Amino acid sequence: MATPSAATSPWSGRLLIIGSGLIGTSLGLAASAAGAEVWLTDADPARADLAVSLGAGRPSPAGAVDVDLVMIAAPPSVVGRLAIEAIRAGAARTVSHVCSVQSLPQGDVEASGVSTQRFVGSHPVAGREVSGPMHGTATLFRDRPWVICPTRRTDDDATETVAALARACGAEPVTLDAGQHDTLFARLSHAPQLVASALAATLTGLAADGVTLAGPGVRDTTRLADSDPQLWTEIAAANAAPVAEALRAVVGPLLGVADALAAAAAGGDSAAAQTAVHELLRGGRAGRALLPGKHGGAPTELQVLQVVVPDRPGALAALLAAVADNDVNLEDLRVEHAPGQAVGTADLVVEPAVSAGLEAALRDAGWTVSSGPATPL
Amino acid sequence: MATPSAATSPWSGRLLIIGSGLIGTSLGLAASAAGAEVWLTDADPARADLAVSLGAGRPSPAGAVDVDLVMIAAPPSVVGRLAIEAIRAGAARTVSHVCSVQSLPQGDVEASGVSTQRFVGSHPVAGREVSGPMHGTATLFRDRPWVICPTRRTDDDATETVAALARACGAEPVTLDAGQHDTLFARLSHAPQLVASALAATLTGLAADGVTLAGPGVRDTTRLADSDPQLWTEIAAANAAPVAEALRAVVGPLLGVADALAAAAAGGDSAAAQTAVHELLRGGRAGRALLPGKHGGAPTELQVLQVVVPDRPGALAALLAAVADNDVNLEDLRVEHAPGQAVGTADLVVEPAVSAGLEAALRDAGWTVSSGPATPL
Repeated sequence: MATPSAATSPWSGRLLIIGSGLIGTSLGLAASAAGAEVWLTDADPARADLAVSLGAGRPSPAGAVDVDLVMIAAPPSVVGRLAIEAIRAGAARTVSHVCSVQSLPQGDVEASGVSTQRFVGSHPVAGREVSGPMHGTATLFRDRPWVICPTRRTDDDATETVAALARACGAEPVTLDAGQHDTLFARLSHAPQLVASALAATLTGLAADGVTLAGPGVRDTTRLADSDPQLWTEIAAANAAPVAEALRAVVGPLLGVADALAAAAAGGDSAAAQTAVHELLRGGRAGRALLPGKHGGAPTELQVLQVVVPDRPGALAALLAAVADNDVNLEDLRVEHAPGQAVGTADLVVEPAVSAGLEAALRDAGWTVSSGPATPL
Repeated sequence: MATPSAATSPWSGRLLIIGSGLIGTSLGLAASAAGAEVWLTDADPARADLAVSLGAGRPSPAGAVDVDLVMIAAPPSVVGRLAIEAIRAGAARTVSHVCSVQSLPQGDVEASGVSTQRFVGSHPVAGREVSGPMHGTATLFRDRPWVICPTRRTDDDATETVAALARACGAEPVTLDAGQHDTLFARLSHAPQLVASALAATLTGLAADGVTLAGPGVRDTTRLADSDPQLWTEIAAANAAPVAEALRAVVGPLLGVADALAAAAAGGDSAAAQTAVHELLRGGRAGRALLPGKHGGAPTELQVLQVVVPDRPGALAALLAAVADNDVNLEDLRVEHAPGQAVGTADLVVEPAVSAGLEAALRDAGWTVSSGPATPL
């Protein structure tokens, strides 16, 4: 696993993007901003038009365009076919894609008999639970990993072309074998999606006035369940064996805990149930500690200043102006705010070096502030 | 299920809070702000001292204090015992608690033979994945439901005392039977906690440089896994049968999908696997649609304006000042911002009525803005 240095850099190549959804449009916006000449197309012309109108590139002409790179930003089920067509058309020096699954399209291309010298898969690890060109943003890939999966015969030149585009989008290129990629992302992405959906689906069995009592925890835990069912069905089906294994890795311990709790409830061993639950919870904390912080790597030691903010136009702006007056750059900002109520709170997440000074300055200015270490991001 | 109207109201009673953790301290802060006379205690005197120093109340004297209400904000395993002691001491007109589990403490109190006329369980549906008095905040309960679970013999007066305190903290009192409460919150809270932990725990089996490729989805889905293992072990054990049932309701469909995907991967029926996955994902979306928005009730139709924000002190403040200049009150604000990079984005969530005007004004002022419907909160 190689991690070349990540720095946003210009990229003045010629890029054809096939597929103008969230990722294709974002890629067009980012590449255009980096200096690329970008053409866009989509099976649905209205989507390509919208992406073009958002500034993501120019409409692709009817014939083939000679480009440095074709990027296929289409659903998993059609990526292989589109890649084979692009390789056969011969108008692109490199053919790549941005699919969440790598082995299936690579296998399709290899099985088709076309040369894979110009072909290299890729996967920018970025996305949102919304889809479509209108949600595209030039900053979607910033500081995100961008996995690149060359075949055994891919030219280094093709791999470097995709890496250069990734850097131009502000992402960090990381090279992985396609199979490694798929096993890893079954755990990091595909299983979490399905687990979030399964959890959210259980809410449908509750009375409506019961669900209204839900707190923020279940909302966060199920946020991914807003994602597009069609896209994620294709992703799961295209990575079936690793996803099945990843789901079983989550489900097994949960079943063990459910059995232990049921046994305890039936008059069995309560201590054993508590041990099972505690082990699961401790394992969860250990897993969370491995997640990268905003800066990548280990969790950060940021401080949070919690400030009471009156709920009226300008109050939050006044607070942030006070922060800026103290020449402090926020690492993160979380606002909880209740319309119709007099106040909300703003959590200002800052570097430890500036925390105490800012807290004192805000108190002096009349703000109600409490402080503490931030939860690891 | 009754839902009296929720409006923050004064409450000038005398309140003893037993347990000075996140909830006890927050309750002290909110009740003090509403005009109550508050005393605090804790098995760990240092925690009570900290809560007192944060302004949550006064230290409890050595002897009994005559109060209108004793609120027990202690771990589930000791709530029953503390409630029985408080009822026996006889110095409180009403004895209640704020435990996430209701049937167990209620059963303990009923089995002890003390009168339950003055006893009523309660559960403010608020919390954070951090714990301890230092994270306490007077606004923790604002606009949150506060479930109240009278016994069959509880005096109406006792129930109303707790409802009045809930309203004074800005919460909405909702009356439920203890058993209904525990079944519902096994689904809404306890199972999501354990599922988040199980998902996070699977990350420990991955190579460290693999986990660094995690995206924001798995981070959100596992956020709850930061919670206190000891507390949640007690909660799960105290609500064992409903939690076991809730976990099985999540796990069953996931196992079905895992089996279908494994069968497809082994050369079996791919269409059947896709149908199974699609059903799960569609069910998840249906469940999400039931979750209350910030205003409660059905998902809102808010608009989001996504604005590019340079990453320097004052840039976000300038944006929010521009928002305030247009007399717009933000419904929500989400910032994604990458230190070391030139720009981040701010999602301004606003009422549809003001969206277009604000978008035009921000563009006129030189901001880069795109707009669309907000994801249901």
